[in-house]
Amino acid sequence: MLEFYYAPDTCALATHIALEDVGAEYRAHRISFNAEEQKSESFTAMNPKARVPVMITPEGALTETPAMLAYVAQTYPDGPFKEIADPFLFAKVQEFNSYICSTLHVAHAHRMRGSRWADDPQAIAAMQAKVPDSVGACYRYLEDHVFVGPYVLGDTYTLADPYLFTVSQWMEGDGVDPADYPKVAAHRDMMRARETVDKALSMEFDGL
Amino acid sequence: MLEFYYAPDTCALATHIALEDVGAEYRAHRISFNAEEQKSESFTAMNPKARVPVMITPEGALTETPAMLAYVAQTYPDGPFKEIADPFLFAKVQEFNSYICSTLHVAHAHRMRGSRWADDPQAIAAMQAKVPDSVGACYRYLEDHVFVGPYVLGDTYTLADPYLFTVSQWMEGDGVDPADYPKVAAHRDMMRARETVDKALSMEFDGL
Repeated sequence: MLEFYYAPDTCALATHIALEDVGAEYRAHRISFNAEEQKSESFTAMNPKARVPVMITPEGALTETPAMLAYVAQTYPDGPFKEIADPFLFAKVQEFNSYICSTLHVAHAHRMRGSRWADDPQAIAAMQAKVPDSVGACYRYLEDHVFVGPYVLGDTYTLADPYLFTVSQWMEGDGVDPADYPKVAAHRDMMRARETVDKALSMEFDGL
Repeated sequence: MLEFYYAPDTCALATHIALEDVGAEYRAHRISFNAEEQKSESFTAMNPKARVPVMITPEGALTETPAMLAYVAQTYPDGPFKEIADPFLFAKVQEFNSYICSTLHVAHAHRMRGSRWADDPQAIAAMQAKVPDSVGACYRYLEDHVFVGPYVLGDTYTLADPYLFTVSQWMEGDGVDPADYPKVAAHRDMMRARETVDKALSMEFDGL
């Protein structure tokens, strides 16, 4: 049994979808950012970074979305993520996921989390102002150079798909118009209709 | 044969060391940032992101350090990176590498690459001013909560080690005092004495 800690509207959704995709046995625990539960003693004992997601496995705690996605795929080899058997395809998936976590998610984070990188309120406002450009540039790159379709890397569903779907939830909030990125927008619509995605989203927003 | 494109003093060093660790057959190609070779047509045809590192494999191009590190380990299974056979240990290694690329390297990048996230020169200066704090906080986390020793995750050399060594080259430039992080500092000294590290560094700085 895996214990999975998430907050709605965060990158935790990617791993949550993957857990549904493989049919994992897990319990999902919602963390309230409003109540700052991620800063509680019990939570930081699991993850001193005070962030979601966290997954407690029988062997210990895991954090960081790309690592958890690969772990879910590798521990459920009968699931849909067949890329784990092909080092090059797996590397392409990980290249995508690494770009999402280190570039796209980081660009997005400058909208709400600018205080990580500057103290001056005017600097934080300047970061916020650039988010539509910097996040938009990430989608421009993905749309023009990476996305194959209908899934991110072609005909096969991979770990890249739940991760792209997850961050693409933030496009409008970041001032990025999905209509400018029709492949990404079509992927978002297709993924939204996927049963495992619906189940993870329903669970995360249930009662909110 | 792999073709590996790097620039000195970048995160490319991590993969370069791993290539030496596994005894890979590869050719290394130095890219001059001063001459802006990373923006040339021939380079951006390989990597539209206009960044190093890039690895051309028989199956196509790869970018993003965590993905390349895993690829090198998986395609040379007789090399030292035995974590690839253990999903949880591999996930812990990938968790570490994901943190380095999405948090530590990103904090560092605010010193020289602030224009990625703001246009206002004063905002860029404010980001630079916070780098000692934000990068230092990453090392505080690694030192207090992650590093086991003598290698990052304990007695076994993993893909986390060349990556930590690589980013730790930037500590002084980022205004972070290695003496405040004795485990990381000792790791840096130990890694610097490693034959494969010396070979990769010698190749990268040869003639400069």
